[in-house]
Amino acid sequence: MSYRTHLKVRFGDIDQAGIVYYPRFLHYFHVALEEFFADALKIDYPQLLKDHRIGFPTVHLETDFSKPLWYGDEIDIEVRVRRLGKTSITWEYLTFTKGEDAPRIHGSNVTVCLNMDSFKKMAIPDWLRDRLLPMVAS
Amino acid sequence: MSYRTHLKVRFGDIDQAGIVYYPRFLHYFHVALEEFFADALKIDYPQLLKDHRIGFPTVHLETDFSKPLWYGDEIDIEVRVRRLGKTSITWEYLTFTKGEDAPRIHGSNVTVCLNMDSFKKMAIPDWLRDRLLPMVAS
Amino acid sequence: MSYRTHLKVRFGDIDQAGIVYYPRFLHYFHVALEEFFADALKIDYPQLLKDHRIGFPTVHLETDFSKPLWYGDEIDIEVRVRRLGKTSITWEYLTFTKGEDAPRIHGSNVTVCLNMDSFKKMAIPDWLRDRLLPMVAS
Amino acid sequence: MSYRTHLKVRFGDIDQAGIVYYPRFLHYFHVALEEFFADALKIDYPQLLKDHRIGFPTVHLETDFSKPLWYGDEIDIEVRVRRLGKTSITWEYLTFTKGEDAPRIHGSNVTVCLNMDSFKKMAIPDWLRDRLLPMVAS
Repeated sequence: MSYRTHLKVRFGDIDQAGIVYYPRFLHYFHVALEEFFADALKIDYPQLLKDHRIGFPTVHLETDFSKPLWYGDEIDIEVRVRRLGKTSITWEYLTFTKGEDAPRIHGSNVTVCLNMDSFKKMAIPDWLRDRLLPMVAS
Repeated sequence: MSYRTHLKVRFGDIDQAGIVYYPRFLHYFHVALEEFFADALKIDYPQLLKDHRIGFPTVHLETDFSKPLWYGDEIDIEVRVRRLGKTSITWEYLTFTKGEDAPRIHGSNVTVCLNMDSFKKMAIPDWLRDRLLPMVAS
Repeated sequence: MSYRTHLKVRFGDIDQAGIVYYPRFLHYFHVALEEFFADALKIDYPQLLKDHRIGFPTVHLETDFSKPLWYGDEIDIEVRVRRLGKTSITWEYLTFTKGEDAPRIHGSNVTVCLNMDSFKKMAIPDWLRDRLLPMVAS
Repeated sequence: MSYRTHLKVRFGDIDQAGIVYYPRFLHYFHVALEEFFADALKIDYPQLLKDHRIGFPTVHLETDFSKPLWYGDEIDIEVRVRRLGKTSITWEYLTFTKGEDAPRIHGSNVTVCLNMDSFKKMAIPDWLRDRLLPMVAS
């Protein structure tokens, strides 16, 4: 199962070269992840942090940029669960513009399940794993 | 007494209009404030937050922009303590470029001394007031 | 006539004090302004810049913060045209959270109509003024 | 030859988890790159863009995060030229904190030399290649 969220490139996302400042894409990906938790997993990410004290810091990321984005572009970011480990999750983010089949920007990151009080790695709790399992990309 | 810190306008600070995205100036001002604490007051702002549990959230801000800034511009931000109240401090930030007497951007904000555990207003502690007093602009 | 746009406070909008980093509100206001152009004025702001070569840099801003915002908060930003001058527009931005009548953050800025090629002030074109007029707050 | 630049983690760089928001590291890397051009290559990056109309957009990036950074941390970012191609450069960024031999964050990106008017790939000009050559990591 795949999930897409819609975003608009904003005036302030542009850099001196006139295209989206590439660190902004990592912010876009995080926003897409927050939406994925809310809409696809029916989990409130803020609550996960505050009440369950569970976080998902990034330990590795990779991104390929094949075409730039400009001010006014509207994008769909497809979020995929590429791999579901015991303590880690590998995510993919595919950034599409209207009318194009190939993603312009293709990112992935590995996040580790962390106890936010001890800042130690922990096994992904079963209730969370159960919701993630049907989302794992085949 | 006045204090100045030096900053460079960065590639990613620019917006679609080709000038510094104006919300970035508020970030510049905060960076200047952090430097002011470190260099002029000899107070480590991170420590103030973590160990003393004292913060200074902004309750009011005003900024005048007379000329824009461009990528590559180097600026001096002058930090002034305009008013030292019982619980609040009014700061001024004057942004100068080399060779100009008038500030291009002139900001000010009012911050309130806050207990970071209760999130309640508190009197500025004497040890902090003592360091701020000689800095109050005349 | 008033116009509201909906935004979510994002994970990355939070600062060391655990609340929205105040420069982010100025970014929120700009996003709200972009949405206002698109939805209320039926003007594509990116096109205004690129094709009409018209921009609206900020020359003055003021903001009052009465209560902070936290991660997970959802907000409505009401955009008002406070004053429509020959070359300048004064905007207001009222940030509401659900169930509250008073805005938590109340901003305003003055923007100047600028020819983006000459970077010189210009009169707001009639076609644009005509769309703004019904939106002026009474 | 290696080159290091010094940066401070800022109040506004922190996210809801209390550590540096990971997209900020990509911004740090770009700042380090700008400093590398200025200090190590004696090339003004703003001028390269404006006068020479040469830019270096990122087409690929990878980053490993082994330990987080906190507010108040001071870092050295080591910039290395890993590979100097005909049209592309592979950079490395190693983020060190005081007293540690292993980098906490280790990034790399591939940038392509671009004609900023045509937005087309171009060969790295000889005068620029000559300055980069002695910096290639062995």
